[in-house]
Amino acid sequence: MTYCVGFRLEAGLVFASDSRTNAGVDYISTYSKMHVFEPAPDRLFVLLAAGNLATTQAVVNRIRRDLRDNSSGEVGGFMAAAGGRPDLLSARHLFEAADYVGHLSVAVQQDFATSLRQTGASGEASFILGGQIRGDEHGLYLIYPQGNAVMATEDTPFLQIGESKYGKPPLDYVGHKNLTLDDAARLCLMSEIITRRSNLTVGPPFELAIMPRDRFQISRRLKLDKNDPEINRAMEVWTRSMQDALQRLPRFPWEQMPL
Amino acid sequence: MTYCVGFRLEAGLVFASDSRTNAGVDYISTYSKMHVFEPAPDRLFVLLAAGNLATTQAVVNRIRRDLRDNSSGEVGGFMAAAGGRPDLLSARHLFEAADYVGHLSVAVQQDFATSLRQTGASGEASFILGGQIRGDEHGLYLIYPQGNAVMATEDTPFLQIGESKYGKPPLDYVGHKNLTLDDAARLCLMSEIITRRSNLTVGPPFELAIMPRDRFQISRRLKLDKNDPEINRAMEVWTRSMQDALQRLPRFPWEQMPL
Repeated sequence: MTYCVGFRLEAGLVFASDSRTNAGVDYISTYSKMHVFEPAPDRLFVLLAAGNLATTQAVVNRIRRDLRDNSSGEVGGFMAAAGGRPDLLSARHLFEAADYVGHLSVAVQQDFATSLRQTGASGEASFILGGQIRGDEHGLYLIYPQGNAVMATEDTPFLQIGESKYGKPPLDYVGHKNLTLDDAARLCLMSEIITRRSNLTVGPPFELAIMPRDRFQISRRLKLDKNDPEINRAMEVWTRSMQDALQRLPRFPWEQMPL
Repeated sequence: MTYCVGFRLEAGLVFASDSRTNAGVDYISTYSKMHVFEPAPDRLFVLLAAGNLATTQAVVNRIRRDLRDNSSGEVGGFMAAAGGRPDLLSARHLFEAADYVGHLSVAVQQDFATSLRQTGASGEASFILGGQIRGDEHGLYLIYPQGNAVMATEDTPFLQIGESKYGKPPLDYVGHKNLTLDDAARLCLMSEIITRRSNLTVGPPFELAIMPRDRFQISRRLKLDKNDPEINRAMEVWTRSMQDALQRLPRFPWEQMPL
């Protein structure tokens, strides 16, 4: 399993991901699910990936190949498979980049659909693509396994892929578009840690990336491995806060008037 | 959808349930999912139900019929369908009662399996059965759609059915077997409210029942409907606690040493 979250703030973008991959419970390994692309000084993208690892790796490999081929002036071999769509270097808008990744993902899945179906396995993958192209707003897209995409808005500023339920309530209760980048990063990291507590197939290292708007660079990047004291300290703070909250919750009528 | 939780404490049992039932998103109605059975002074049971409403209602109806038939001295018409197993009145141990409910559930599901399968619908249902029979410990069982059951233990004191993920982290972080009954009830209610915030198919009225050990009665029962100010006050306390927690979480290295 996987849990990735992206947050679109007024001040920029925040990304968080875990690194656990499992094929069954008896084959667990570590892979980064956060990929940064800086194809030119006027654009920057972060891609978070969940789902079938072969699919997500193939999509990342094809993105890189297209960038190499196109930036060297050659005609991109894979651009045909993406329907001649602009790639990360030639896209003029972020939605075109999301469209490109969605089409790569569907193409990869179709390559293996027949053989996967025969074994009852799924080649599906989901992505979060965030970034900015000069002249355009910074933005954040969730790309479904079917290739289409939805974007984060002011009302719904965060997007999740993978094991999204355990870690969603803190984002729902505290998250909004005017958080500082550091606070949003802290919240996303806490959302990862909470998810890991309840689902062992989500696990560290946890990765964080912060991308301020209009700067076209990752300003901060952090990787916390499982022995990092930050994780335990965050869990302690969270546990104590919940214990305090429990004591502050309204009393029941019968507690105010004991029999 | 549904979300029910039962908590087994040293001091007794706590039960919480929502009341929303939906057949698609365009047919939403309200049904209690908490059923109390007091077939004799030496025993008390609370049954929480999730899944197909026709199945859970049929199971409850058959439990009631068996109790009526058996307590009046007649031979229970449905006991045969439960394989001649002891019912809630004749069971000597809680696990026998869980076994009985599990077999009723499977029998009901099998009655309609063929026609349901043809329409692609599922007749599955899950139950939480808690209670106590004199001479035995108080206990709590989760009964799977397949009829078998697991019980709560000291290490895993709470059990959930239905939409269990959103509301699990507070139980994981703060829940333990030595909570007071009132604190555990508050925690279970908060877990319901959190789940409702993230999944609209879980909704009020929320019901709570508290059953102290060795007393063979429900000491407290509460039903909070959607306009109850308790729900809003609990959400405010929880939101404020999470905001405080966010401010208390460890700073990132770069925040301590600004550039």
